[in-house]
Amino acid sequence: MLENITSPADIKDLDIAESEKLCGEIREKIIQTVSENGGHLASNLGVVEATVMLHRLFDSPHDSIIFDVSHQCYTHKLLTGRYLEFDTLRKEGGISGFTNINESEHDLFTFGHSGSAVSAAAGIAAANKLKGSDAYTVVMVGDASVSNGMVFEALNSISDKDIRLIIVINDNQMSISKNSGRLSAHFSAVRTSRKYLRIKNSTERALSKIPVAGNWLIKIIKAIKHLLRFVVYKDSLFQSLGIDYIGPADGNDLENLEAVFTEAKRRKSLCAVHITTKKGKGYAPAEQAPEDYHAVSAFDPEKGAEAPKKGFSEKFGEILCAYAEKDDRIAAITAAMCQGTGLTDFAAKYKNRFFDVGIAEEHAVTFACGMARAGMKPVLAIYSTFLQRCYDQLVHDASLQGLDITLAVDRAGLVAGDGATHHGVLDCAMLKCVPGMTIYTAYDYKELEEMLSSALCEGGINAVRYPRGGEPTKNIPWEDHGDFAVYAPSENADTAILTYGRLGINAASAADTAGKTTVIRLKKIYPFAAKDVISYIADAKHIIVAEEAMLSGCLAEEYAGKLKKLMPDTNITVKTLGKDFLPHGSLRYLYGMAGLTAESLAQDIQAKRK
Amino acid sequence: MLENITSPADIKDLDIAESEKLCGEIREKIIQTVSENGGHLASNLGVVEATVMLHRLFDSPHDSIIFDVSHQCYTHKLLTGRYLEFDTLRKEGGISGFTNINESEHDLFTFGHSGSAVSAAAGIAAANKLKGSDAYTVVMVGDASVSNGMVFEALNSISDKDIRLIIVINDNQMSISKNSGRLSAHFSAVRTSRKYLRIKNSTERALSKIPVAGNWLIKIIKAIKHLLRFVVYKDSLFQSLGIDYIGPADGNDLENLEAVFTEAKRRKSLCAVHITTKKGKGYAPAEQAPEDYHAVSAFDPEKGAEAPKKGFSEKFGEILCAYAEKDDRIAAITAAMCQGTGLTDFAAKYKNRFFDVGIAEEHAVTFACGMARAGMKPVLAIYSTFLQRCYDQLVHDASLQGLDITLAVDRAGLVAGDGATHHGVLDCAMLKCVPGMTIYTAYDYKELEEMLSSALCEGGINAVRYPRGGEPTKNIPWEDHGDFAVYAPSENADTAILTYGRLGINAASAADTAGKTTVIRLKKIYPFAAKDVISYIADAKHIIVAEEAMLSGCLAEEYAGKLKKLMPDTNITVKTLGKDFLPHGSLRYLYGMAGLTAESLAQDIQAKRK
Repeated sequence: MLENITSPADIKDLDIAESEKLCGEIREKIIQTVSENGGHLASNLGVVEATVMLHRLFDSPHDSIIFDVSHQCYTHKLLTGRYLEFDTLRKEGGISGFTNINESEHDLFTFGHSGSAVSAAAGIAAANKLKGSDAYTVVMVGDASVSNGMVFEALNSISDKDIRLIIVINDNQMSISKNSGRLSAHFSAVRTSRKYLRIKNSTERALSKIPVAGNWLIKIIKAIKHLLRFVVYKDSLFQSLGIDYIGPADGNDLENLEAVFTEAKRRKSLCAVHITTKKGKGYAPAEQAPEDYHAVSAFDPEKGAEAPKKGFSEKFGEILCAYAEKDDRIAAITAAMCQGTGLTDFAAKYKNRFFDVGIAEEHAVTFACGMARAGMKPVLAIYSTFLQRCYDQLVHDASLQGLDITLAVDRAGLVAGDGATHHGVLDCAMLKCVPGMTIYTAYDYKELEEMLSSALCEGGINAVRYPRGGEPTKNIPWEDHGDFAVYAPSENADTAILTYGRLGINAASAADTAGKTTVIRLKKIYPFAAKDVISYIADAKHIIVAEEAMLSGCLAEEYAGKLKKLMPDTNITVKTLGKDFLPHGSLRYLYGMAGLTAESLAQDIQAKRK
Repeated sequence: MLENITSPADIKDLDIAESEKLCGEIREKIIQTVSENGGHLASNLGVVEATVMLHRLFDSPHDSIIFDVSHQCYTHKLLTGRYLEFDTLRKEGGISGFTNINESEHDLFTFGHSGSAVSAAAGIAAANKLKGSDAYTVVMVGDASVSNGMVFEALNSISDKDIRLIIVINDNQMSISKNSGRLSAHFSAVRTSRKYLRIKNSTERALSKIPVAGNWLIKIIKAIKHLLRFVVYKDSLFQSLGIDYIGPADGNDLENLEAVFTEAKRRKSLCAVHITTKKGKGYAPAEQAPEDYHAVSAFDPEKGAEAPKKGFSEKFGEILCAYAEKDDRIAAITAAMCQGTGLTDFAAKYKNRFFDVGIAEEHAVTFACGMARAGMKPVLAIYSTFLQRCYDQLVHDASLQGLDITLAVDRAGLVAGDGATHHGVLDCAMLKCVPGMTIYTAYDYKELEEMLSSALCEGGINAVRYPRGGEPTKNIPWEDHGDFAVYAPSENADTAILTYGRLGINAASAADTAGKTTVIRLKKIYPFAAKDVISYIADAKHIIVAEEAMLSGCLAEEYAGKLKKLMPDTNITVKTLGKDFLPHGSLRYLYGMAGLTAESLAQDIQAKRK
């Protein structure tokens, strides 16, 4: 049945039983594909029914259906003409694991950051009203995303109720990490509040039976009726913001979903629909341990997913634990990425000094600033791409205050399978604009430890970056010179490559192939002390500055400018990832697109010599 | 009495009557000083009593008292040893209009952006608990700031109630602009909810008198008691986030304040205190029109403040109105700065196409992206310094989506009286990192119109920047060359100055003084097409690149690098505002600190020639 669906039109006439069958097939397809290609599993299994029902009741692309973060869009992709390509999920040249504007008219945004979708949906709905369109805008947002400030700003700012915007809160009670924050307690209170509504209803019925005996009783009954109205008005955060609220409904039950979505549609005005779904639904291991199945590598569905390989993240956690044991001023902060940033052990060992603030990167930085002001040594572990949320906090709340904080920037550089929204290729551009910032990039675990140690000892704002995955397996005999390392296989090299991070592997390999080439690999990547490195490349006629970052605001241009001043007769070429956002694909494939493989770099060297 | 107060210790023993007298003197001093120096008036007059009571009951600096935005810190300054310097408020070398870490140990942060203080206070309180300190952290935040996502993130993320953090919500019912957003409706609901609490209390009393006559009645009474608990639990946003909540209390009544702050202190744990204050309290014109007295220039207290002079902001509003009349796709968005950004007329004329989203800059950008996706032409008017909140939204929600949005960047460059937190000197650094961004800086109103027209016609993300104040009064005969303008008073000039914006005035004046100097003033400041300008400065042996921006991430370095490539034999000097944050003071004073006055630039030229 699923293989015959080429557009949402094909599911409009399905009855509930047929829809259920379809959901089963979708689940099977998702489990099979994710087990082969890796990807987001638990969240996608949770929203199968809700997505099917949205596409049955709403008319995409006339109506807009938008997913927050959008890692839960697999069912949406299967229903919007991408069944045949679904096997290519997350593969080079294949479809992306997130909604993508280049794939389909049903994908309105290429989203991957939490909290953006509600604001964007509010904009579309407002525009549709201005244009006189009758189109609905439906945005599905997870309960963890609602803890993000942007979602609150969006909910708070929609002053016009007369827009056809439906906000579906997908409450799966555990988004990414175990949900932190007061809002999750709130949702759980709302779930239990159904009990209060039942009490309210039975109370009202009972009250209507009370014989009106005396003045005092009339007064009380009136007062109670007032109170009851107040209870109804106030029984959710959304209603305290004045937004009509439907639910909670069972989000894995098609009939329930049909009822609440139909009601939301009927209102033709702003409302929130609260559905509760089961993360991992339909795949027992994922239901039992949804956190382990949030994002997985390929696995055998019979055996279940294996524990992810240890890498920089876990090593970071290990190092921080060791430091925390010696220094009780060290505290760790994460924005809903405890496991992803390798802090699970820290959280267990140093419970008091571990702070998971939810998906709230801005608050995380300023909270760290507060701790620093009171004499602690806060370390914020955060993915490079999400750190982009914090420019103002780094400038205004950290730098201007002269505070000492450490940023452990995980997933720095390309993040192969996830693509454009998750590549960590614009953080240095931003960080170097923050007055007083020092930036390091670690090549291996030894350097990671060294850099974290420097960051915690020296003052100011220090960012220690490291990529997804583990340290290099290839053994390259780098000479360590403190702020940089040198690989000089031949004397009197006529060519030099200046780079940092794991790109050093490609650069060293290119040097081996092309010969007479020295590689300078920076460890402290900003500020760049050009005068310290030039004695190692004094004979270079050509320098290639290679950086795993987008061209906009790249460090490489600045490196080149500084070298040019000191070595005016040298020919200097800058190579970056270029001006366009790169898609998903293997690291090798992406380096290939940018001309940053070992082979490309070797060819560049040889071409320069001609 | 005020003149004898040198520290908060001096007010600990005052009784209520004495405190009231003190408040009167403080008010007088504030009105007198602001009328002479300009500054924030209405908000400061509102919080006199609350600040006095906080300093009476808490022990600063052992206890931390922090102000959000901190423009309301004048009473705090008067009570913490700055009475004698208070006449220097906002003057060169004098005390700042915001809390400032360089002024006093009672100022824990140099704050000027909304929403940061609650996060920072949460960090301090968490650190104090870890250190075993008994110190309280009190943070005062305005009701408008609570609409900022950061505050919500902070409130949501405080998972530990056992910290001595007191959040004082200063509800003045109109912060900066008329408060927008659902939260303000919420606060107004809470204010009226006191009625419900009265009903609740009288109901409880009445219920206790009901004779327990039958089974059904017992059942009802139990149910009602349940409900009453629920009402109490849910009657504010804070409580829906599980934060203990005291108030609302009259924030201009010392006895009331003493009661609620004492109660908050007694709890020794996280709680919110909701106080309502009267903006402008004690100065009739400000009470009547608090918006006009939010931030004022010097004025005659007898006559009241005059309407601010028209400048770039108002001109922007005028131009946008004209465009909106011709094109109904144009919409204007502001983040609580309707008046400040000159949109008052637009808001009145094009009510449907005007969106004030509250102090929610991040949402503002992504909301604009949604509108653009649906075919509108959104223009976001925003102060440069607050735009810093939006790096991720510009990258992930605008640039990556290939959307067309226009940023009208007001207060670009130095903002004389406000100082470090308000200077717009780091926006270009950030904007140029956003792939595909085009940046303009307007010199006069004609250029502003030209640039807005280009921005709205061309695709992509366009930022049109303009400074606080009006267009230059001095008439300089610039030759217009499209993306730049040239002032070439003498032929075969041996020196060139490359600059943009109002710094062009100083540059032209320096050229007149030093002679044989050509000034290139860029209009499109990024990307910079170096090859277009070099034919005008072909004979230059020296080029000074001058920019009204901080050194970190400045454009000037990039300009210099590009020029150097094309003119390798030319000596190029970069002059910016330097690496340190500049304080408040007149524009001339600040230019002087950075060596960017006409005189300094002329001296630079002459020095180069030697």
